[in-house]
Amino acid sequence: MFIDAIPKEIDSAMADAWQAFHQYRKMPLKVRADFMRAIGQELKNMEDEIVPIAMKETNLPEARMRGELARTIFQLNQYGDAAESGEWLEARIDTANNDKTPPKPDIRKMLVPLGPVVVFGASNFPFAYSTAGGDTACAFAAGCPVIVKAHPAHAETSEKVASAILKAVNKQKMPKGIFFHIHGAGVEVGKALVMHEHTSAVGFTGSLGGGKQLFDWGNQRKVPIPVFSEMGSVNPVFLLPEKLKNSSEEVAKAYAGSITQGVGQFCTNPGLIIGIESDDLQKFIETVGKEIEKTAPAKMLHPGIAKAFDEKRDKALEQNNVTTVGVSATLKKENEGTPTVATAAGKDFLSNPVLHQEVFGPYSIVIRCKDMNEMIEVAKHLEGQLTSTFMATDNDIISNEELVEAVKNICGRFIINGVPTGVEVCLSMQHGGPFPATTDSRFTSVGADGIKRFARPLAFQNWENKLLPDELKNENPLHIWRTVNNQLTKETIH
Amino acid sequence: MFIDAIPKEIDSAMADAWQAFHQYRKMPLKVRADFMRAIGQELKNMEDEIVPIAMKETNLPEARMRGELARTIFQLNQYGDAAESGEWLEARIDTANNDKTPPKPDIRKMLVPLGPVVVFGASNFPFAYSTAGGDTACAFAAGCPVIVKAHPAHAETSEKVASAILKAVNKQKMPKGIFFHIHGAGVEVGKALVMHEHTSAVGFTGSLGGGKQLFDWGNQRKVPIPVFSEMGSVNPVFLLPEKLKNSSEEVAKAYAGSITQGVGQFCTNPGLIIGIESDDLQKFIETVGKEIEKTAPAKMLHPGIAKAFDEKRDKALEQNNVTTVGVSATLKKENEGTPTVATAAGKDFLSNPVLHQEVFGPYSIVIRCKDMNEMIEVAKHLEGQLTSTFMATDNDIISNEELVEAVKNICGRFIINGVPTGVEVCLSMQHGGPFPATTDSRFTSVGADGIKRFARPLAFQNWENKLLPDELKNENPLHIWRTVNNQLTKETIH
Repeated sequence: MFIDAIPKEIDSAMADAWQAFHQYRKMPLKVRADFMRAIGQELKNMEDEIVPIAMKETNLPEARMRGELARTIFQLNQYGDAAESGEWLEARIDTANNDKTPPKPDIRKMLVPLGPVVVFGASNFPFAYSTAGGDTACAFAAGCPVIVKAHPAHAETSEKVASAILKAVNKQKMPKGIFFHIHGAGVEVGKALVMHEHTSAVGFTGSLGGGKQLFDWGNQRKVPIPVFSEMGSVNPVFLLPEKLKNSSEEVAKAYAGSITQGVGQFCTNPGLIIGIESDDLQKFIETVGKEIEKTAPAKMLHPGIAKAFDEKRDKALEQNNVTTVGVSATLKKENEGTPTVATAAGKDFLSNPVLHQEVFGPYSIVIRCKDMNEMIEVAKHLEGQLTSTFMATDNDIISNEELVEAVKNICGRFIINGVPTGVEVCLSMQHGGPFPATTDSRFTSVGADGIKRFARPLAFQNWENKLLPDELKNENPLHIWRTVNNQLTKETIH
Repeated sequence: MFIDAIPKEIDSAMADAWQAFHQYRKMPLKVRADFMRAIGQELKNMEDEIVPIAMKETNLPEARMRGELARTIFQLNQYGDAAESGEWLEARIDTANNDKTPPKPDIRKMLVPLGPVVVFGASNFPFAYSTAGGDTACAFAAGCPVIVKAHPAHAETSEKVASAILKAVNKQKMPKGIFFHIHGAGVEVGKALVMHEHTSAVGFTGSLGGGKQLFDWGNQRKVPIPVFSEMGSVNPVFLLPEKLKNSSEEVAKAYAGSITQGVGQFCTNPGLIIGIESDDLQKFIETVGKEIEKTAPAKMLHPGIAKAFDEKRDKALEQNNVTTVGVSATLKKENEGTPTVATAAGKDFLSNPVLHQEVFGPYSIVIRCKDMNEMIEVAKHLEGQLTSTFMATDNDIISNEELVEAVKNICGRFIINGVPTGVEVCLSMQHGGPFPATTDSRFTSVGADGIKRFARPLAFQNWENKLLPDELKNENPLHIWRTVNNQLTKETIH
């Protein structure tokens, strides 16, 4: 058991973070990147110790935990490289022009860090979206100290990861206060962290209720701060007619796998599948049902999540005109989630908001639309999503532009002929979408563009070259991309 | 007199805007840019008609009005060019790699428009930050329809500018509903616009009270939206010792001019000047005082602003230990603002929050710090600012790092040896700063980077080349900069 932080501890951690901020933000990009790589190395060093602890706390299997730890180290390295490349700084330079009336001054702009960032660990990714996860890596890359509130469901894992970060802090001689790890099972600690005057931004991955509450607190402060909550979504999948005719069985099998992968505990789990009434759709439904029956229940992350899954699933199944398509044939044990797929008609989906809600776990509902118009209607009534997926032939796409455009407008990532689970860590990734998927659709929490969440532009006007930061000096000593008089270039300025 | 919009009109305008959004967002970048250039041309065509109306409504002189109209046209052209260049789209491409386990999919990301944008006209810039001003230009460039609420103080000017936009809409055959102009003197119309389900973002320039209210409404919606309020600031100016010793008189004259330029009605007006007690500072104060005495009062934008100026100025002057340095020797007439400069000691400033507040108009206060430590203390206690300025020699900068760093942290634009008034329209400009200068320090409302306020990233995963938007196709038909596998390039992909 870990003890909740008390207000005095929070004050002291934030005061240290504020001090550290003013040192860390002046440090060269390379120093930040080396610090992040050192954290990765420390995590690698403790892999055999930490993986069993995470397995015990989360009920996730060894291969997943080793894979997720590797992904976490990869993120630290990749975002470190990105930080060092300087492309994210959006350096812009307009040189002086004294021939203009009035004379045009020399102005040079780059992104600078916001300040201490509070990160809330996610229950479903004990490594990749928790203590040393994506939000922490982005904040360090931007030049911000980090205060992590451990997720209580994997507090020991979090404590171990924090110790790896602190080792890297020492070895790389980073300022004291650049990282602090706090426990807190109740809401008080979280609220105190968000409301603290030195907190400059917040990163969160979790439920809609939790994420929205943090967002509201962030906005209600005397000085509002950005709160980036990634709150998941139902990730609709549209089965288009020609594709379904060609390969309904194959698609059904792929989706039964995606729905139950990791006991359905991914933000991008496909919770809603939409097709048009037809023999092909019936065949799809039957195949999914059979596959689901063959899939055994498995332990969920923690008892609270297992309980919420049962309640939300049962509530969805109780709705009028919802029928079960397939349920795992194996009886579940304590804290396990039973794979389940249901179905309902388009008109019932359109009139019943309960069916739009996420059921976090191995559950999905197949919506049977009476025709393409109803499918478009459904698309237009969906809330914001992290992902949308089309299972479609070229012909399906070309002949259904209205549907394509409607779906484009509600999601952050638009997949064709694939499954939404599996979020690649790369610059082109968008993991974020219109509310309620996230609180700010303009940013991503996966990929190096996530660094920009924790930075703001600062313009220097009329400064002498030698007094400017290296990033903006004429000679471009860091050799970074900059937009000089509206042209992207790495050239020096003469 | 214009009549306030009624709810039915607002509903109908927003429904049209929503329709138009789905057409406009698919239109090529060049079409958007041509539309914006056409607005500029229409404004140019009506210059001689519109300038006298604006002069009458705002009390601003002809040269200023002609200059501001030229700037407005320049903005439309410059942001149109920027839209067409495609650099702002942040196109990112990571190509597939089937050798990886699991295989890495092809992912391509670009910015897409948010949806209809509501723009509130600013009283102090009837052209450049109103109906066809910076916010409107950025929204059109991003691919968003615009609904403008006219500022009631220059409703006729706004109506005329709106007619120019509508002419361009017709000539360029843009979708009906891409632009709508609404009057509303009370808060009801503004609130209804911000709360409307189809409103996707808001742009505002004006007072802290007004801007913060819109921000709160935006966050209280069922689906929160970004509200970009630029709410002005006191724009502190730090007089450093060596600079003051070398040129106190010259600096004083430049600042007397900046304080009273445009009757002090700029967001970047220098309302706070901070020096260290010395003979040089006394000389500076005396010179400013004399210059201010020589400057005649002038008519402010409207009676409400003139009244607020008098009240806030008088309140500031009534505070303990505040003394007057100089007041215009000319008696003011109705609705005029009297140039005024006051002074107070550092310790009184630190203990009295009233002295931190903006007095919108030709007013500034000189703070006399007892030493550099107190000057640093003052810097650390300042709220967020659009600009900060140093009047300093190289030596002043090099020997006062703590002050430099403290000031860097509170502002969006950091000027040396210049005046903050005069906001250049260019890509490197940052017009935005930590709260309460703006509601979101991560964005600017001047310069083409302001386009990004109204867009969000959308990633396409696994799409065939021919089905992708032109911006992301292998052959790069628009010849734009893109980051392909982490390298910035204009090359095609093979």
